[in-house]
Formats: sequence, C-alpha cells, structure tokens
Amino acid sequence: MSATVTLNRFTDFMAGPARFMTLLSCFELGLIDALRQRGSQTAVQLGDAADVRPAAVEQLLLLLVKEGFVAHDETTGEYTLDALAEVPEADLRRVLLLMDMIKVTMLRQVFYLTDSVRTGTVVGLEKLYGFQGGTLYDAVAEHPDLRASWATLMDNVTAHIDPWFFDNIDIPPGARVLDVAGNTGLGAILTHKLKGSPGLHVTTFDLPEKEAEALENFRSHGLERQCSFVGGDVFTGLPAGHDVVLIKHFLDMWDKDAVRAILQGVSRSLEVGGQVHILVPVYPESVRDSTAVDIDFFPAFFLGCTMGQGGPQRSSTYRALLEECGFTVTRTVAQDPARLLPGTFVVHGILSATKHA
Amino acid sequence: MSATVTLNRFTDFMAGPARFMTLLSCFELGLIDALRQRGSQTAVQLGDAADVRPAAVEQLLLLLVKEGFVAHDETTGEYTLDALAEVPEADLRRVLLLMDMIKVTMLRQVFYLTDSVRTGTVVGLEKLYGFQGGTLYDAVAEHPDLRASWATLMDNVTAHIDPWFFDNIDIPPGARVLDVAGNTGLGAILTHKLKGSPGLHVTTFDLPEKEAEALENFRSHGLERQCSFVGGDVFTGLPAGHDVVLIKHFLDMWDKDAVRAILQGVSRSLEVGGQVHILVPVYPESVRDSTAVDIDFFPAFFLGCTMGQGGPQRSSTYRALLEECGFTVTRTVAQDPARLLPGTFVVHGILSATKHA
Repeated sequence: MSATVTLNRFTDFMAGPARFMTLLSCFELGLIDALRQRGSQTAVQLGDAADVRPAAVEQLLLLLVKEGFVAHDETTGEYTLDALAEVPEADLRRVLLLMDMIKVTMLRQVFYLTDSVRTGTVVGLEKLYGFQGGTLYDAVAEHPDLRASWATLMDNVTAHIDPWFFDNIDIPPGARVLDVAGNTGLGAILTHKLKGSPGLHVTTFDLPEKEAEALENFRSHGLERQCSFVGGDVFTGLPAGHDVVLIKHFLDMWDKDAVRAILQGVSRSLEVGGQVHILVPVYPESVRDSTAVDIDFFPAFFLGCTMGQGGPQRSSTYRALLEECGFTVTRTVAQDPARLLPGTFVVHGILSATKHA
Repeated sequence: MSATVTLNRFTDFMAGPARFMTLLSCFELGLIDALRQRGSQTAVQLGDAADVRPAAVEQLLLLLVKEGFVAHDETTGEYTLDALAEVPEADLRRVLLLMDMIKVTMLRQVFYLTDSVRTGTVVGLEKLYGFQGGTLYDAVAEHPDLRASWATLMDNVTAHIDPWFFDNIDIPPGARVLDVAGNTGLGAILTHKLKGSPGLHVTTFDLPEKEAEALENFRSHGLERQCSFVGGDVFTGLPAGHDVVLIKHFLDMWDKDAVRAILQGVSRSLEVGGQVHILVPVYPESVRDSTAVDIDFFPAFFLGCTMGQGGPQRSSTYRALLEECGFTVTRTVAQDPARLLPGTFVVHGILSATKHA
C-alpha cells in the first residue's frame, strides 16, 4: 500500500463521525419521512415540513445524494427518495435503533477512549454523566436516556439471537441448568419455552440485586417452581450441582484473563461430563482484509463506552481458553456474515464443550 | 441499489465514530511510536511501553491489522508497522493534527447536530462548554483546548493554501486592497509579501476587537504604513475606495442568503471595474457518486460545530451569486482533488470577478 493510499484511508476515517451523524440527523429532522410521505420536495418545502432553514436542508442532503440514498433533480430543485425508497420500513426502523444506540452510548464517549484504556474505566460516563467507577450496565439504571437507547436495542437483538442459540444447543430432558450472568431471568424463561422438558430446572445466577425482579419474572410466567435464583459474583464462585451451564451475552465484556477466570470457575462448578454452552460475538479468524465491521466497532465500544475492558475474541481463542480450563469442545457454530439481518453487523458464535476427567 | 446494499452502507457509517477514534487512540497511546522506534513488539511489550493492558492493545490493534496499517505475526504474536512504515513522518504529523482537530471540535459536538440545525446555533458548545450563543470562532478565545486544536490546524492549512491563492490572482501594482474578514492582518501581510508593489496598500476589515492585534502585527512586520485596519460588520457596510477586494476563508461560514448579502455589500463598495478575489472550499459540480470527502465533512462541521449555519457551495453556485450581485466572473480555479496533500480532503476554489456597469 503506498503512503498516499494509506493516508487517503485515514481521510475516510476522519469523515466517519460527521458522516454518521449527518445521515442520522436527516432522519431525526424528519426529512426522510417527509420525502416518503409527500414524494418529491424542494429544499424550501422540506424546510417547511421539518422547520429547518432550506440552506441547512441542502447541506445535509448532499451526503445522501452522493450516496444515492436520495436523488436531486437539478432543474426542478426537487429531492426524491432513491435507494431509500427500496428499503422496507421494518428494516429501517431496526437500523435506526442501532444508530440511536451508537449515538447515545458511543458518539461522545469515544472522545475519552485513550483515557478509558489507560485507566480501565469508562471515562466518558464520568465526564458526560458524572457517573463514576461503574459500567454502562450500571449507568443505565440511573440515566433514562442511556437506558432507553440501550434496552430497546438489546431487546431487539436478544429476540433475534437467543432463539438461534437454543436451536443450536442440546439440553437433555430433566437437566439442571445454570444460566451464568442470567440477569433478571429472561434466559431461564427462554430455556423453558424453547427447550422445556419434564423435570427441567434452570437457575439464574447473577448479582444479588437482580433477585427480586428475576423471581417476579418467573412468577409472571408461571415458572416459579421450575426456575430459581442464586445471587453471587461470577469471579468468586459458582453454585455446584448443575448438568449444563449457559453463558450468553457475557464473555465479550471481559479481558481475556477474566474470561479464563470465568471459565475456570465454570469448570470447578461442574462434574466430569457436565456441559457448557456459550453465546458470544466472535471476530473472524482471519483479520487482515476482513470485511467484518465488528472489528471497527467492538474495541471502542467495550474499552471506551461500556466496561473499560473487554471485547470479543475469535472462536479459536475461546476454544483454546475452554481447553485450558478442562473442557473438550464438542461443537462450534458461527453466524454466516452474509446472512445477518440487513444493516446489522455482529456475528455471533456458539461454543459447546464438555468437562473431561 | 438493493435494500441490502443500502443498509450495509448504513452499517459502514455506524462504524465511523468508533473507527475514527480507535485509529487516533493507537497514536495517542503511543503504540505506533513504540512500533516505529522499537521494531516488532508483542502486545505485552507494547503494553509495557504504553502503560496499557496487553488485552486492550490486542483489541485496539485489530482494526489496524485489518486495514493493513500494522502486521501481526500469529506465531510469534509480534506486531510490526506495515503500510504505516511507508508514510513519511511529516505527512503523518499533518494528518494527526487534522484528526485532533476533528476530535476536539467535532466528535462530541455532532451529537447535537439535529438541535443545532433546528436552532441555528452550536448547541454542542453550550452543552459541552457552557458556551452560549456564540460560534466556534468565539469559543476558541475562551477555551484553550479548542483554540490549540483549531489554531494549529488552521495555521497549517493557511500556510499551504494562501500562497496558492496569491499565485493565482492578479493584484495591479499600487492597488488599494481590502481584505474582508481579514482577522488580525495575516492576509494583508501575505499580500505585501507575495504581491508587493510600490504604493500597494492593504486594509484589513474585521470586527473592531481585532484592531489592536492587527496593528501590532503590521508593526512587527514593518508594514504599518502599507497596511491599515477598519473595524466594522460585513453585513452593515464595507468601506469604499478600494480597487481589489479579497475574501478568504470566509464565505463557507454562511448560509447562501448571507453569502448573497456579503457579495451585495462588496459590490456596493466597489466602483465599476473593481475586482474581487474569493478563496473558498468548493463542492464538486456533480455530487452523485463523487468521491469528495468534503461533502461528508462540511455540513456537520459548519451546522453542528462551528456556526450553526453555513457550508461551502459548488463553484457554479458562487459564480451565479457573483453574477446576481453585478459581477462578471473572469476566472475560476479549483484544486485538483488528485493533487491535494496526502491525507487532506478540502478542495479549495478561487473565483475572480469584475464589477460591471
């Protein structure tokens, strides 16, 4: 790669924040809705519809014309939806939720990425919200704007991904299952819903403060006898007596050493023959020249915006860690990047493993 | 364009803020310097050098490996500069200044783009700095972080662009020149330095508070008799009695209606035959499928980060406005985008025009 090609790539990166927000702002201002509902419109008409000066409408829509999302007729001055006319509204709504999540939980916070990496804390939460020493997952409890943006997106993701996970794992009838970092019980309820069998019992393990809400969720689903809650800290000890351990949406939050510690704890809690099933985003095995957007997204997200540490690994890295911790990996599955929902980019993997003697 | 192609393009936009800051953070943390100075290094060695956890080094460098900027040897675990080894340090320094300017003046501010567009003010300056009702150009006077980042960059740009401007315009010997929005006199001094002639006199026109510093600059260059300062507001009236008017780095700050008002004022201040020379960034004439990064950058920069209005126009738009205001355009020049300094993306244009009867 010549120096000029490299520096032109830097230039493309420099445009990233402006490009992201200009596109989102065209939606936030209602310009795209106005074009969808009213057909061709001049900048003056769009300005009237969105209560924005026509000069600003012209500036913002330049990018969308350049990209072919919107067409502009030079003679009439009218804008019309172009490629955006072909995008189903449901897809667009899903993508806009993701963009809003990135705006609210990342756009300003990444300014503090370097400090966050140095300190291992989310400096942006302190600077922007006065929220000290905690993670994004703590901060959503106190800050409705973070919570709204984050939870809406996560509910959407979980609804798509968890059924795929349960489709790809085997839970023996009547098994005693432990859902590690199971939050307020959704995973336990889903396990019964999707893998139910006579005698199946699922224990949600998470921080003690989740217990009341988890028990209430179990009750409201009529599962109070088939589910239970154990409070604790995943780094100090997991309850024994389970046949199957689930670890969903969790390992990517931690540095590799912490992942190893978690898997060691899981291993100690299981008898020989016990199984673990992991659901986690995975990086592609070959990074160089990959088209995976996860690589662009997750380091800044975990290090700068949510945890001050963490980030996904490659499937082969998780496999090696499992093997270090006394497991034989029996199955790995990864989503086909080409078959993700349009406009999403997180490639999830599943690793299933059995504790050996 | 299919809906999937469109939404994948959205995905690329979503990665923009993270991608920008991850790259910059690798420089800020000193990871790239360490690789340049010490050759191949493992994540542990880089972590020691930069006082960063090796796990975070691995996460951040994934993007640079993906892009081919840095190479990673899977067997030794060592990182080495790849494409970045070919980039001259002076180019890299220039590009890092630009990235720092984008980080400090834009990255967080664009969060408020929609509100800024609606109100015509820079909402980010109020939210982030408690700075109300002013522009970035006002805010730099009070906030050293904004000033350092902004001024360093602008000095760099001016040093490259203004000589090109003066090379491409004609200033008759002994002319009386007015430098509109001439700030603290740098343009007047450059005019003498690059276009000096016996009897040449340049008047800097800007807000009255610039006068003292401008006069001091004239004195320190020994030009106190060949330069003068007139304080005023470009929208309420320009001083008459000049042969040539210069408008550099200014028209792009204003909405099109304001540009028209400025040019009407210039026209009123000139006799028939008087000339105006404009230096301004220009968008490409054909926007659709253009590769110009200006289009991605400037709307968010002016609307959301500096003025709450403005943005460049195409050269043909400036030409039409000049003609509306009683001028005949005699020459237009634009930088060749393919010949910009590597890693820069602003394409400047020059328009020269003569007031007709």
